[in-house]
Amino acid sequence: MFTGNFDVKTSDRTQMVNITSEVSSAVEESGISEGMCLVYIPHTTASVIVNEGWDPAVMDDISSYLDQRVPWKGGYSHSEGNSAAHIKASMLGHSAIMAVRNGELSLGRWQAVFFCEFDGPRRRSVEVSVIEG
Amino acid sequence: MFTGNFDVKTSDRTQMVNITSEVSSAVEESGISEGMCLVYIPHTTASVIVNEGWDPAVMDDISSYLDQRVPWKGGYSHSEGNSAAHIKASMLGHSAIMAVRNGELSLGRWQAVFFCEFDGPRRRSVEVSVIEG
Amino acid sequence: MFTGNFDVKTSDRTQMVNITSEVSSAVEESGISEGMCLVYIPHTTASVIVNEGWDPAVMDDISSYLDQRVPWKGGYSHSEGNSAAHIKASMLGHSAIMAVRNGELSLGRWQAVFFCEFDGPRRRSVEVSVIEG
Repeated sequence: MFTGNFDVKTSDRTQMVNITSEVSSAVEESGISEGMCLVYIPHTTASVIVNEGWDPAVMDDISSYLDQRVPWKGGYSHSEGNSAAHIKASMLGHSAIMAVRNGELSLGRWQAVFFCEFDGPRRRSVEVSVIEG
Repeated sequence: MFTGNFDVKTSDRTQMVNITSEVSSAVEESGISEGMCLVYIPHTTASVIVNEGWDPAVMDDISSYLDQRVPWKGGYSHSEGNSAAHIKASMLGHSAIMAVRNGELSLGRWQAVFFCEFDGPRRRSVEVSVIEG
Repeated sequence: MFTGNFDVKTSDRTQMVNITSEVSSAVEESGISEGMCLVYIPHTTASVIVNEGWDPAVMDDISSYLDQRVPWKGGYSHSEGNSAAHIKASMLGHSAIMAVRNGELSLGRWQAVFFCEFDGPRRRSVEVSVIEG
């Protein structure tokens, strides 16, 4: 199994960052032609998803929806005050998995991989594991 | 790694389609007896989930809930007008992964694999990757 | 591929159970040093997620949020009356996948693996599959 990682630096509390090229570079670096690629974050207030990369308004709509439905102040009990970020992270998930074919990440035409920051700004880490099959 | 795919034709805007038999056929076709099966869709306005396959009312309740909570018209900025479908897809995810044991998809007694259409009707593609382990 | 499983006994309708040590034991038992670990539940009214394990208030806030937003009685059509549990399960998912490195589950500093009961109390089963890579 190949393991790589890279950092993402966010500048807002909620921010969707297209990390497709970084993930693709890790897959290329792995030298693996067929298998599965796991994009994983070791964080609890952020997510990784696959969604549309063409029109940035799509990710704006997703983050606005989540901000509205999961209010920052909501009578939470966690003393750090960032429960909304943990809730969003539990809904969108901590990882995304995709096939690797012919040495490339197998994404649909409009798909991109996004790091979703819910408690920024922060420096975050993304781990890419590629398993041969 | 074995790779297969099949099409799903949907007839409504929101539609939950039980694809368990198609996924099981791909696993059988792979000839792999032990490993992991990734069900992946190359789309950004649809999802794949595992949930109850016995009573269709369960999937009706899931799709009704999502339709109520993620309204089709909601002051979104994405010009195509299908942001609700992108939001639902980000919440339910683009893939499902299961173990393969004794040459069969390892599902619980009441579990089935569903393709979730959020922006139909359309012709969609489902990719099945099986990795030996 | 190594396959292990263990039971979780829940005592409330909604209950978040930290299962990190059971999952770690299965990884150790597998004897696999590099690969991927799939934590899977064969149920349709429960989930597995990765989130903060340090402050239990985080999981309380996540379950309170879900209880508020997915009411137990909500005009559902599924006759068993537990549609809310199916809806929550579809949102949080039936599995979590993580890398295994140096024979250990590769989790972030604050991360833990949680079994999420949405229709307890029940005796549940958790399956751990570890694939070498």
